[in-house]
Amino acid sequence: MDYADFSVASRLAHIRPFEVMRLLARAQALQAQGRDILHLEVGEPDFPSPPAVIEAGQAALAAGQTRYTPACGIPELREAIAAHYQRMHGVSVDPARIVVTPGASGALLLAAALIVNPGDGVLMADPTYPCNAHFMALFDADIHRLAVGPETRFQLTAELARANWRAHDRLLMLASPANPTGTVVTLPELAQMAEFAREQKAALLVDEIYQGLVYDGASHTALEVADDALVINSFSKYFGMTGWRLGWLVAPEAHIEAVERLAQNIFLAASTPAQYAALAAFSPETQPLLEARRLAFAERRDFLLRELPKLGLKTPVIPEGAFYIYCDVSALTEDSFTWCEELLEATGVALTPGRDFGQTDAERWIRIAYTCDVPRLAEGLARIARFIEQRRML
Amino acid sequence: MDYADFSVASRLAHIRPFEVMRLLARAQALQAQGRDILHLEVGEPDFPSPPAVIEAGQAALAAGQTRYTPACGIPELREAIAAHYQRMHGVSVDPARIVVTPGASGALLLAAALIVNPGDGVLMADPTYPCNAHFMALFDADIHRLAVGPETRFQLTAELARANWRAHDRLLMLASPANPTGTVVTLPELAQMAEFAREQKAALLVDEIYQGLVYDGASHTALEVADDALVINSFSKYFGMTGWRLGWLVAPEAHIEAVERLAQNIFLAASTPAQYAALAAFSPETQPLLEARRLAFAERRDFLLRELPKLGLKTPVIPEGAFYIYCDVSALTEDSFTWCEELLEATGVALTPGRDFGQTDAERWIRIAYTCDVPRLAEGLARIARFIEQRRML
Repeated sequence: MDYADFSVASRLAHIRPFEVMRLLARAQALQAQGRDILHLEVGEPDFPSPPAVIEAGQAALAAGQTRYTPACGIPELREAIAAHYQRMHGVSVDPARIVVTPGASGALLLAAALIVNPGDGVLMADPTYPCNAHFMALFDADIHRLAVGPETRFQLTAELARANWRAHDRLLMLASPANPTGTVVTLPELAQMAEFAREQKAALLVDEIYQGLVYDGASHTALEVADDALVINSFSKYFGMTGWRLGWLVAPEAHIEAVERLAQNIFLAASTPAQYAALAAFSPETQPLLEARRLAFAERRDFLLRELPKLGLKTPVIPEGAFYIYCDVSALTEDSFTWCEELLEATGVALTPGRDFGQTDAERWIRIAYTCDVPRLAEGLARIARFIEQRRML
Repeated sequence: MDYADFSVASRLAHIRPFEVMRLLARAQALQAQGRDILHLEVGEPDFPSPPAVIEAGQAALAAGQTRYTPACGIPELREAIAAHYQRMHGVSVDPARIVVTPGASGALLLAAALIVNPGDGVLMADPTYPCNAHFMALFDADIHRLAVGPETRFQLTAELARANWRAHDRLLMLASPANPTGTVVTLPELAQMAEFAREQKAALLVDEIYQGLVYDGASHTALEVADDALVINSFSKYFGMTGWRLGWLVAPEAHIEAVERLAQNIFLAASTPAQYAALAAFSPETQPLLEARRLAFAERRDFLLRELPKLGLKTPVIPEGAFYIYCDVSALTEDSFTWCEELLEATGVALTPGRDFGQTDAERWIRIAYTCDVPRLAEGLARIARFIEQRRML
């Protein structure tokens, strides 16, 4: 037909589908056939939203809290988030700098729209979470994905940034803890990168979506050393509120007005019931529950780190946070994507191939999400062991 | 301080704050002082979310529906929206073409990201809803706001589009019923504009956010005459679900894959509790309630259309839909913004000045939102009448 033959914007060429979606669709098809599928590919905590959050959401609905809120969120939630920074990190953040958003997605959208002109350079690590790169592609940035590896714990450093900086770069983007590698940027390194960004009159954007899910040492925020950084956060992961779609952006004081203007236009406001529900995420009864969940994640990570080497799955860097382990499978395959496909067909274990996260050397990596309990993880490892053994005998 | 001295993206110069926000802030300050404020500026229905929607939301939370849904929405909601098109408009829409979004904002974002390259031309009417223009500015479009007036019922026509089309224009944007004017584009006119867009290999984007709120004649959708149009809709206005932030985009079949790819990256998915709650918006018990509300809006409109001329507030075009009346106040002032400010201070009546919607001749217009009941509207008109009388005597 002649219809709809307008061409799509050229940015679509730079916004790729998630490869894991094909695997996920296949996993679901196998599940529908009655196969027992072990989902080690899902970036969503297996824990439900905390009971107090559910109850607060229901109470908000009963009270008719279904109208628009101010564009930057209800004042009590912005204050609760500020109090959270004070309590967890000893850092004082003006609630006026905290913008409540529809998921961390909304926060990334605001940050990218605020900073990136078409053609502006953005420096980020490779591997990275694909959406983070795609938000920059959305605004037609010239993305520079710098290959990093175990030697820098898969993170950019100030030294790398300086050595690879281009004249048109205007944004330095980090994630800590990072997806897919689970690694954390230290405070001194964050401070150096913030200083480098300042020198360049560039912006520093730090994705802290997995903040709180840290298992070695204290959890930190870039705000402790750089109150001019743009910081992205979410109620999805640590607070277990994925489907509510609620996150926040901390913006530098100088840009609050512009961010609010964008928020008014881009999404009007975040979900009202979700905002009231999220107040309960900081309640005294929820805090110990979240800590118990963090310890459960730590136990899973420790189990995997102990068991994976026995299968020949190498983890050259200990992930301190998030709920992912990035494994080197190059001893087993030259093509982790096909390996994941075959593993799924043969065993029902779903993993995410490195190709979703990296462009350089991606075929040697896979991501394991420990979003199921230790017995299920053990079952998954047993199946992977049998799969490897069978392939070895071919 | 030296901090955060990165410059913001140049698009910010084209994304203006809503002028009405200043008025709203002043109105709220007056209210806090104990003044009785008549809010005729608010673009939000005064009716709460329907009881069945609230109950469905609570039930969804009780059932633990707080996880991510597929990026384009839960299948049952996409099917319910398709059934709605069939029932209300006799038009068959494949549920695969319906993408559930975080508010109509999410739908506009998808559409703009899909179509607009930096520098691409976009043709739209002036006056228009400011967000519609700002979404195009977000993607650095070259926006062409064509001044239209009562002679075309404040709408573009195929003839006007043809006469004013530029070589780099790639998108023709309409709203029906429109904000701020409440006017509707007829089906034959829609068909002609769709045909014109096809000739130009351009896209046609129709904002139908106020669909269903039509008081003269039947409610229509562009999909009846153009299944290659991109159509934006919302649960906010007709369905009374503003704060839930839920809308949808109908995309042409040829672009479904690209739209889904964008949705995966830009917002992952819309709010899960909101999606389950919205299923009840189509329930047999909710339908008569929404119809009763539509009739209440019609009564308010008729009341205003009868009374406004007596005050010298001219409505040269009868608005058939939405809940707005666009009034010509040029007989009373040369500067509707200042007039609105003075009216608010003197009487506590809040209106929206034309400057928020139009660039050409905006100072002669104001928008009245009939989002309060007839007695309050009558009180508002009485205060406006006294204000006009007092000024006349000065």
